[in-house]
Parts: sequence; C-alpha cells; structure tokens
Amino acid sequence: SSLAFLSPLLALTRSVSFPATIAPRTPKPVREALAFVMADDLLRRTFIVFTVVKGLGFPWQTALGAIFLAGTLETPVKRFDLVHQINARGAFVVSRACLPHLLKSANPHVLSISPPLSLDAHWYARHLAYTMSKMGMSLAVLGLAEEFRGRVAVNALWPRTTIDTAAVRNLLGGEPLARRSRTPAIMGDAARAILLRPQAGCTGRFFLDEEVLREEGITDFEPYAVTPGGPLQTDLFV
Amino acid sequence: SSLAFLSPLLALTRSVSFPATIAPRTPKPVREALAFVMADDLLRRTFIVFTVVKGLGFPWQTALGAIFLAGTLETPVKRFDLVHQINARGAFVVSRACLPHLLKSANPHVLSISPPLSLDAHWYARHLAYTMSKMGMSLAVLGLAEEFRGRVAVNALWPRTTIDTAAVRNLLGGEPLARRSRTPAIMGDAARAILLRPQAGCTGRFFLDEEVLREEGITDFEPYAVTPGGPLQTDLFV
Repeated sequence: SSLAFLSPLLALTRSVSFPATIAPRTPKPVREALAFVMADDLLRRTFIVFTVVKGLGFPWQTALGAIFLAGTLETPVKRFDLVHQINARGAFVVSRACLPHLLKSANPHVLSISPPLSLDAHWYARHLAYTMSKMGMSLAVLGLAEEFRGRVAVNALWPRTTIDTAAVRNLLGGEPLARRSRTPAIMGDAARAILLRPQAGCTGRFFLDEEVLREEGITDFEPYAVTPGGPLQTDLFV
Repeated sequence: SSLAFLSPLLALTRSVSFPATIAPRTPKPVREALAFVMADDLLRRTFIVFTVVKGLGFPWQTALGAIFLAGTLETPVKRFDLVHQINARGAFVVSRACLPHLLKSANPHVLSISPPLSLDAHWYARHLAYTMSKMGMSLAVLGLAEEFRGRVAVNALWPRTTIDTAAVRNLLGGEPLARRSRTPAIMGDAARAILLRPQAGCTGRFFLDEEVLREEGITDFEPYAVTPGGPLQTDLFV
C-alpha cells in the first residue's frame, strides 16, 4: 500500500521496482485509514518517521486514497462520505495534525496526491462525488500553501498517465489498462524531487509527474512504462 | 429560520418584511438539520411542498447553512466536519434526494446559496474549512448543472452585500454590521426571479443577488438596505 509509494523517499535513491499495491476496499474514514497504517509494522514505522520525529527535515506524505466513479444518482451517500472522508477530509485533517510538527522542521513539505485545480464542468458532471473529493484536496493545497507561505511548502502532485496500482487493476480497467500505465516509481521519484527542494521557493504548485522530472533533467520516461514503447492512457483530470 | 427566506417564494409576491432569523447553533449534520426542519410544523409543510408533491413546477430550496471563520490550526476537526456536512455534503445529499422528484416536475430548479466559484488563494488562506465547504456547494452546482443539463436547472445565488441574518448579528459583526447590510428580502426576491425562469435557458450560473434583480429591471436597491443611504458591507467571496 503506502509503502510502494514511500519507499523511494525513504531510500533516497531512484527506485527501480515496486511491489503490487493493495488498496483498502472497505468504507472507512481517515481515522480508520490511520488505524490501517498503525496496524502494519512497516507502515507504522514509516508514518512515525514522517510525522513525529522533530527537526527532521523531511516532509509528510500519505498515499491513501479512495475512488468511486459514478453519476450523482448512482452514488450512494455512503460512497460520497467515503471519498470525502479519505480524500478531502483526509488532506485537511492529516495536514492539520502534522503542521505543528512540520513548523519545527528544517525543510517542511506537505504533498497532496491530487489533480491540478480545474473548474471544467466535464469532470464534475461525470463523477461529482469523486471529483469534489479530489478537487477538495487541491483546494486545501491552495489554501494551506498561502496560509503557511514561507513556513511550510504545500503542493499537489498528479500523474499524467494512469499508474499501475491496485485501483487501476481492481476497480478501473484491469490488466489492459495496467499495460497502458506507468509504474508507481514515476510518482515516487517526482515526489522525492519536490520534497528535496527548499520549501521557500516551492509552494502552491500543482505538478504533473513528468513536469517535475523534466525540471530535474530527466527526459527518458520509457523506464517507467509498464509496456515500454506502448501507448499510454492519460489519467483523469489531465 | 428557513421560513424568512422561503416565504417570498411561497407567497409569490415581492415581500416587504421578514422576521429575524434564528440560526441553529449546535454542531449537527444535515440529517439533524432536516430533523430540525421536520420538528417545526410550518417548516415541515414548506419542505414537503417543495420536495414531495409530484408534478409541482416548483423548485426546492434550503436556507440552512453553517459558518466558522478561522485559520486551519484554529479550526477543530469537529468544526471542519460541521461546515462540510451542512454546506457541501448538504448540497449533494439534498439535491440527490430531490432529483428523482425534480425530474418529474414541470420546471425543476435547484438553487444553492453559495458563492461564485473562485480559485483565489486569498479566500482559502483566511478560513480554509469554511471556504472549502462553500466552494464545495458551488462545485456541486457546476457538476449537477452539466450532469442534468436540459432536465433540471442548477444554479448558485450569493449576496453582493452582507445580509441582516442571525449569522451576521450573532457570529460576525453584530448590530454595526447588520446596519451595513441588506435585508433577506433581496435574496428572496432574487431567488424567486431565478426559480420562475424556464429551466432550460438558465443553468450552471453563479448569480449575485443584485445582478439577478437588474436583469429583472430593478434598479433601486435602497428598499433592501437596513440603513437606507448608508454604506454597505461587501460580502465574503465577492
């Protein structure tokens, strides 16, 4: 789960392989998502490293997320609540909980895995609840970046293409979509690049993974492709 | 409470006076807000008229809302949840519950009392939780208008100036701010004007009250001023 995403940050090396991720499937709010993290030894240690150790110049990150793609009348209220609680509420609540620690850190960053802000009705008309929850995360980035400008960097990161994750394999397009995706490594590497930047000069931005890596001088993205040379599927909101 | 706002719509006449509104003060989610409505004879009948009677060419409206203006670290999670539940979740849940009835009506409208969409970081930096919750309502308008285009009109309405309500008197600026406000009648009249328009030609818009009334040929707004001739306070998000 989060580990696949976090490992390149912890290792501080460009990683080459990631285990298949296992997405939590049950409708749990953030509290329970955190319990999920805490119940796993490795995840808990990772989480503690990222949030509790004071003075550590390292940012916090969560890769937990929830997805539900349906029209308004096909979205049970329970699902609206789930995607809100994990995504938008999660971004607010976890950022808020971490900010007092981040404010004491050397180079604090909050990085939200959420899309570039868009008021294009298209995305809202197709799956309102999910889009509200993801854009809610990005609105939190917009506000927190301004509220804590000069003290904590707050940015969003989103993949240009679909990523080969449990969500893609189990919920969206299965193996065929996975083959037109990139590996989580591109998001890990892009996140690492952002988080190593000085916070003062890098806040309130809505990055696409490719864009970050181009800024780092990387121009060959084939190593990230699940099917090198094959067609790629553009992600939602791009 | 809602009655002050709803009465001009029910009476179908330009109203001249409104009782002072009493805002619910306790942190209750929409479910409980609806219970609040249901516990009151007049509110319940109003609500039923607006939602249950099939074929009635009349739209649904709620004037329930929650406000909490504070920075992120000064916003308890409970308050984030309250404003989200009453505002953004309320807009989604109540619209969703009413849509099957509205789809059978002659001229169905949903009208959300929420601000023009804005990605100006200023509003998010000052009171993130509240702004997320109100813009969340407007994002729901954006999506629902597109999703139900040609079938149900979905619009937002927001006052250009502060309105003399319980929120202004009890929570924001007290009597001095109330004196620089307009009466709820301007919102009632603007809402009525929107709701009487054919749904097909009027959807996905983010109206200011004055703008609607100007379109109706009204140019004298002095009758709406609490202090005729006095200075007016521009509302949040305008």
